[in-house]
Amino acid sequence: MPTAVDIREVGPRDGLQIEAPISTAAKRQLLQALARTGVRRIEATAFVSPTAVPAMADAAAVAEVVQEIDAGRAAGSPPISWSALVPNLAGARRALAAGFTELEYVVSAADGHSLANVRRPTADALAAVAEVAAAAHEAGGRCEVIVATAWDCPFDGRTPVVRTAELCARAVELGADRLCLGDTIGTATPGRVIDLLDAVRAAVPAVDVGAHFHNTRGAGLACAWAAVTAGVTSLDASTGGLGGCPFAPGASGNIATEELALLLGDSGVDTGIDLDAALAAAGLAEELVGHPGSSNLLRAGGRSRPRGRPRS
Amino acid sequence: MPTAVDIREVGPRDGLQIEAPISTAAKRQLLQALARTGVRRIEATAFVSPTAVPAMADAAAVAEVVQEIDAGRAAGSPPISWSALVPNLAGARRALAAGFTELEYVVSAADGHSLANVRRPTADALAAVAEVAAAAHEAGGRCEVIVATAWDCPFDGRTPVVRTAELCARAVELGADRLCLGDTIGTATPGRVIDLLDAVRAAVPAVDVGAHFHNTRGAGLACAWAAVTAGVTSLDASTGGLGGCPFAPGASGNIATEELALLLGDSGVDTGIDLDAALAAAGLAEELVGHPGSSNLLRAGGRSRPRGRPRS
Repeated sequence: MPTAVDIREVGPRDGLQIEAPISTAAKRQLLQALARTGVRRIEATAFVSPTAVPAMADAAAVAEVVQEIDAGRAAGSPPISWSALVPNLAGARRALAAGFTELEYVVSAADGHSLANVRRPTADALAAVAEVAAAAHEAGGRCEVIVATAWDCPFDGRTPVVRTAELCARAVELGADRLCLGDTIGTATPGRVIDLLDAVRAAVPAVDVGAHFHNTRGAGLACAWAAVTAGVTSLDASTGGLGGCPFAPGASGNIATEELALLLGDSGVDTGIDLDAALAAAGLAEELVGHPGSSNLLRAGGRSRPRGRPRS
Repeated sequence: MPTAVDIREVGPRDGLQIEAPISTAAKRQLLQALARTGVRRIEATAFVSPTAVPAMADAAAVAEVVQEIDAGRAAGSPPISWSALVPNLAGARRALAAGFTELEYVVSAADGHSLANVRRPTADALAAVAEVAAAAHEAGGRCEVIVATAWDCPFDGRTPVVRTAELCARAVELGADRLCLGDTIGTATPGRVIDLLDAVRAAVPAVDVGAHFHNTRGAGLACAWAAVTAGVTSLDASTGGLGGCPFAPGASGNIATEELALLLGDSGVDTGIDLDAALAAAGLAEELVGHPGSSNLLRAGGRSRPRGRPRS
């Protein structure tokens, strides 16, 4: 069992991307609140098509906000690793030009999802790892490959474990510095999480492999815990559990950062996150998007006494 | 790791007890739907004060419904173990007279909760295990002791592990046939679940120890998975995740039976539960109580494609 886990806060990207756009000023507030939680990694934005994802149209402006926040942090504060998602080489160049050095590039393990998401099959998206990683490395940065539909695809069904593991090995050969396995539609379960992680870690033993879970079917935190017991030390989560389908509030979303931080911290696994600050950020996130996320912990009002009368 | 887990369906008791009373006819519908899911244990009702818990006032009538359902089941159907919660010897006598042979008796590990819940300290509630168990045994039945606030108390804070473990050992000496550890306020986390289970199983190695989690802070299913990895083969869950505070819909509740059944089944742990039948029962449960429970799986519409467009 690891004694520490780095949570990557993905609310500003995965949480906000499906929302109606909020202003860059609002994002500044949110990023500042998140920076105060003690979280060590924050996915700040995505350099994607503003037509496809209007909520990410201000990616370059967000890069400036990030630099302002870093400049304003107290001397001696632990550094925050800020990252940006990029869909291709052009996006990578924009992100690097804007000042990001940690890039995330998504490859769907399943052709069905890959075609729907980026209009090319897995093999073509995978081949492009080489140019994205090379661009990152030339600029002194790093490239993480996020493997979408690592467990299941909404179109193709189950993704064979061997397919995901081979994709991971090939991504590393092409230059990926780290990997993250994405449970894109929230169908993973703990036993399958452990099976896939064992296979992937055997395929790429020297590479950091993180995991990204959605709570669509309630199992997100159980999968996260299973991943940690399998040795994972990088987990994605979203403030307030933002990121779900806006037409089914409370029903899905990413796993909530504050819930994951409590779960791990209370289990003896350090995340560096201050729970009160994380709850404050989650409350702000809900306020900024204008609707509740899917965090039960935020609804319960933290770790203290629940609102209802005690029951047996 | 166990290869099979018995889920005890507690919706008809823990789920309904805080709701406005529904008719016995409505309960018949629900119990019939639950009996069709393949679940092997159902907590049907509680023989408690009708003034304190009006939703359980028809406990004797529910006992008759249970007997009708058993009589009407197809020959060769796997048997269902029906149970009733009792608060004291008088309740136990009523339950036994009504035909229940599986009794559950609650002892709060923390004095604060014990005083609030049954107006007597832990030691007095524990002493009464002897008479409740004796009554059950005389009638050819069995008595499970449910340890409330096994991890935390809303009044006293953390319950020391040794206190809960000693209480379990004493309950068994007094006649308890099996035990269940209750995370009454939904504050347990996986590491603490494993710690307590290890201590309790060491204290009472020959006794079946189950666990009961609420999802108040999002960690319910993670705790359930942790419990299974620690060897637990009996877990409580509630259809549709009913049982939460009605003033914070979706924010708490018991862990949802259908979510737990999917999580375990998909991880290679047999529960006997048919997922479609469990979802049908959960939908009916929500309809009967007139508001949504806290099941993300039910909201997502089962294990198939989610409603939103696929995301990375």
